[in-house]
Amino acid sequence: MEREQYLAVIKPRMPEKRYIHTVGVMETAINLAHKYGEDVKKAETAAILHDIAKYADIEWMENIVRDEKLDERLIGWGSELLHGPVGAYIAQSEFGITDEELLNAIRFHTTGRANMSRLEKIIFVADMIEPNRRFDGVDRLRKKAQKNLDKAMSACVRHTLAFLIDTKQPIYPLSIECYNDMMNREDSEG
Amino acid sequence: MEREQYLAVIKPRMPEKRYIHTVGVMETAINLAHKYGEDVKKAETAAILHDIAKYADIEWMENIVRDEKLDERLIGWGSELLHGPVGAYIAQSEFGITDEELLNAIRFHTTGRANMSRLEKIIFVADMIEPNRRFDGVDRLRKKAQKNLDKAMSACVRHTLAFLIDTKQPIYPLSIECYNDMMNREDSEG
Repeated sequence: MEREQYLAVIKPRMPEKRYIHTVGVMETAINLAHKYGEDVKKAETAAILHDIAKYADIEWMENIVRDEKLDERLIGWGSELLHGPVGAYIAQSEFGITDEELLNAIRFHTTGRANMSRLEKIIFVADMIEPNRRFDGVDRLRKKAQKNLDKAMSACVRHTLAFLIDTKQPIYPLSIECYNDMMNREDSEG
Repeated sequence: MEREQYLAVIKPRMPEKRYIHTVGVMETAINLAHKYGEDVKKAETAAILHDIAKYADIEWMENIVRDEKLDERLIGWGSELLHGPVGAYIAQSEFGITDEELLNAIRFHTTGRANMSRLEKIIFVADMIEPNRRFDGVDRLRKKAQKNLDKAMSACVRHTLAFLIDTKQPIYPLSIECYNDMMNREDSEG
């Protein structure tokens, strides 16, 4: 499917504001894909589809987790954690996407994980820094993303965890595995 | 063994500064034990022994982890994470302490864990707020500890994680389980 078709598919599934965010993620992901030598079309498609399950019914998503034998730890963590893995499920089941790299970029765009691929990092980072995002420190993250994808990814996951702790929200285990992996790499790079 | 005997045992195993810290933890733990109805003698002993392995040889400690079948995840995390579990091992093997509550208070004083006992929380909190500690926010933690042990424990673990993220240090899995447990409890308490 082409860009316009994907955009037409996701538009009715989310509020206007989320659609505008999605287009921002798409543009940012395309920019980062060019910059870091990633497959631009894959980045575009992953970005367009990354939030496709964001407004899906939670019970329905939890049933998908059970029926499709996704990570059982997701149950009870709510829409914020479910929509990545379930979004990947929709991409596969509704749109016939079989590219595991592309599916993983959707699957792990909220939590991250250890050993992320370049495409996963691009979608994770693009989701945080797209032009419509407004939060303290976002400009610093945008600058980092133009210089070094790994350092931008590290900074993004640190920012995410610090935000969760500041707002007293639980942290999903995969996010800590992602954080520890990034910190151990930074350390070994000196 | 009595207080003076325990103090005499730990003194030669650590630098003067750490000994002064330990006495501070002891006094704070006794105060919190009185306040929250905990066994004062247990709190005193756990506090005196909590850092007994702090300056032990790392290779020796890693061998203890292997030989005694402690949590294998500890290997490679260095002295900061090893000295709690190995301290509990020393308390048991050298001093014949068999009280699991007391041993757990030593074992988990750095990482925390989910479902901590009152004694474990007292030692964790006392370790952070004893009078010789100097860091931004310590007075706020001290005030909380005089009001509500659970809220003080939550604030201490949040402070610890925020510090680790700020300084780009990895986070041990038990600490996240501790944090998530505390946040879920705060949430359910409204």
